[in-house]
Amino acid sequence: MTMIPQKKLTPVSALGEFGLIDRLTSQHKTSNVSSLKGVGDDAAVLHYPHNKILVATDLLVENVHFNLVYSPLKHLGYKSAIVNFSDIYAMNGHPKQITVGLAVSAKYSVEAIDEIYEGIYLACSRYGVDLVGGDTTSSAGGLFISVTVIGEAQDDKIVYRQGASEGDLLFVTGDLGAAYIGLLLLEREKAVYQKDPQMQPDLEGFDYLLERQLKPEARSDIIQLFKEHDILPTAMIDISDGLASEVLHICKNSCLGCQVYEDKIPIDSLTASMAEEFKILPAVAAMNGGEDYELLFTLKPSAYEKIKNLNIATPIGHMTDKKSGVQLVGKSGGVVPIIAQGWDGLKEE
Amino acid sequence: MTMIPQKKLTPVSALGEFGLIDRLTSQHKTSNVSSLKGVGDDAAVLHYPHNKILVATDLLVENVHFNLVYSPLKHLGYKSAIVNFSDIYAMNGHPKQITVGLAVSAKYSVEAIDEIYEGIYLACSRYGVDLVGGDTTSSAGGLFISVTVIGEAQDDKIVYRQGASEGDLLFVTGDLGAAYIGLLLLEREKAVYQKDPQMQPDLEGFDYLLERQLKPEARSDIIQLFKEHDILPTAMIDISDGLASEVLHICKNSCLGCQVYEDKIPIDSLTASMAEEFKILPAVAAMNGGEDYELLFTLKPSAYEKIKNLNIATPIGHMTDKKSGVQLVGKSGGVVPIIAQGWDGLKEE
Repeated sequence: MTMIPQKKLTPVSALGEFGLIDRLTSQHKTSNVSSLKGVGDDAAVLHYPHNKILVATDLLVENVHFNLVYSPLKHLGYKSAIVNFSDIYAMNGHPKQITVGLAVSAKYSVEAIDEIYEGIYLACSRYGVDLVGGDTTSSAGGLFISVTVIGEAQDDKIVYRQGASEGDLLFVTGDLGAAYIGLLLLEREKAVYQKDPQMQPDLEGFDYLLERQLKPEARSDIIQLFKEHDILPTAMIDISDGLASEVLHICKNSCLGCQVYEDKIPIDSLTASMAEEFKILPAVAAMNGGEDYELLFTLKPSAYEKIKNLNIATPIGHMTDKKSGVQLVGKSGGVVPIIAQGWDGLKEE
Repeated sequence: MTMIPQKKLTPVSALGEFGLIDRLTSQHKTSNVSSLKGVGDDAAVLHYPHNKILVATDLLVENVHFNLVYSPLKHLGYKSAIVNFSDIYAMNGHPKQITVGLAVSAKYSVEAIDEIYEGIYLACSRYGVDLVGGDTTSSAGGLFISVTVIGEAQDDKIVYRQGASEGDLLFVTGDLGAAYIGLLLLEREKAVYQKDPQMQPDLEGFDYLLERQLKPEARSDIIQLFKEHDILPTAMIDISDGLASEVLHICKNSCLGCQVYEDKIPIDSLTASMAEEFKILPAVAAMNGGEDYELLFTLKPSAYEKIKNLNIATPIGHMTDKKSGVQLVGKSGGVVPIIAQGWDGLKEE
């Protein structure tokens, strides 16, 4: 559990807006051929003569999406980029550029902002993405990070939420629920710490859960494997709001129903045991937790052979007609309708 | 002077995130051929096979860039789009799509958010831009609007800040300083109102100043005229931070100096008289005020004949070599160096 790291404490006001932008961006060179001009003018200049362009925007807001008591700033920068990359992979595309809108309290040190950007640049470098523009300003109410990602995909390879057909199989990559259980763990230790600052947080052995919450990855590897093995999902979405919410999106957009089998949902053993400690059914953490940034997709049954031996995704159900509804088939065979109860940043708490 | 309009007060929590997004976007149809798919999937899909793509991001943050005591929400939405369009015009391009990141307190009514979006859509419709995506979430610390604009320009028509040469003439469109004087006026009336809420604000006759501050326009007309009359500036920037700051950007990026003549700077008579009432030199309002969203550009002297009779821009100076510095020539002939003292959102107040 760390507080905001402030080693040297150069006030932002010592640099001003343009000095700060220079400091944050002067070291960064663009590397993609589609990035013709990055930071340094009124707009970045890009070129996509052959492929379609994908664009998505996601916000991270202090005390809504993260808490600075336990979110290291570098991780936060990393995550703010990753959650946007994930949206492009969910279209079967490749992220290529981002712009970053950052609003920080004028009381932040330059070094603190450096750490956020270090995380953003680390994510960019790992995923082959260029930072090409943005806006940095002060905030009277906490830290806001807004990232817009631009990516590309071949016209005939773009996968929407709407392409599934009745009988298609439903798959999910990785495992679910860990990010949410990681959040509960951090909240628990925060409460302990706030009650008694002498208490040391007990986070030993929970690395996997903490990383899934604080420093998630986006599934570029899956998109690469789809390409190598000539697999084209019929519909796809990334899991940001929880499995329930994403299944409902695919069903709604494809005008279908779905059956998801509770016992097929992939859940890591540490997630399951900690969920029980929090008195939460592991399946509920998977269905409603969110922030896993795994990919949920549908495939024609004829494509099953192609994916079976790759070990990259778990079949968890199949698409039905719309009238049959969107259902979770419980371990005992009972059936309940799936309702979105995902984390919703707009509900009053 | 209006408070946040809240007619019916439907809490945002009654709709949730997806319900709100549906409400805000379901009526909006995209109209540009480059917008293949708008809101409704993980990413929007665009297509720009022939032209270069321009991308810019600007943030508006409550109590930094606007004050809800005197900023009607619809105007605020309008302005958040306009300031972004202006960045694309400043490259001699045409804005075509935006994504909107909006963080609002959960206490906001749905109708209040509707008003912000009404303003955004009005700007989009006037300027021929499609809203294609975004993110709406709650904020624990005030209202935050992040807009990313995507536009296009022919490769050989893009104008950067860096293209000016020694001897080029410097022009500015419209008039300067009015947005800043409008802000001072609103701040004065806010102070009066806060001291005594019975006092009615005295804003009669100041429409021009108030509109320049609260509901600015971007100079699409100038870009159109450039095209019609085959005028291609050598360098260009929009005036968001004040003339001083923008002149310095062109000089720095073009590795040049500049002489700006104080008596040539176009200032509206109402701006000038109110500036005097605020005991500010009108030229200072123009140089350091900002938010005028006019275009500052340089032209080869040989192009002067083309622009002279169009009456779209005022020549205010000329580019010199770098060693000669960036200078303001006063009305009496005295010369002072131009230093950026523009409004800087990152300086502590």
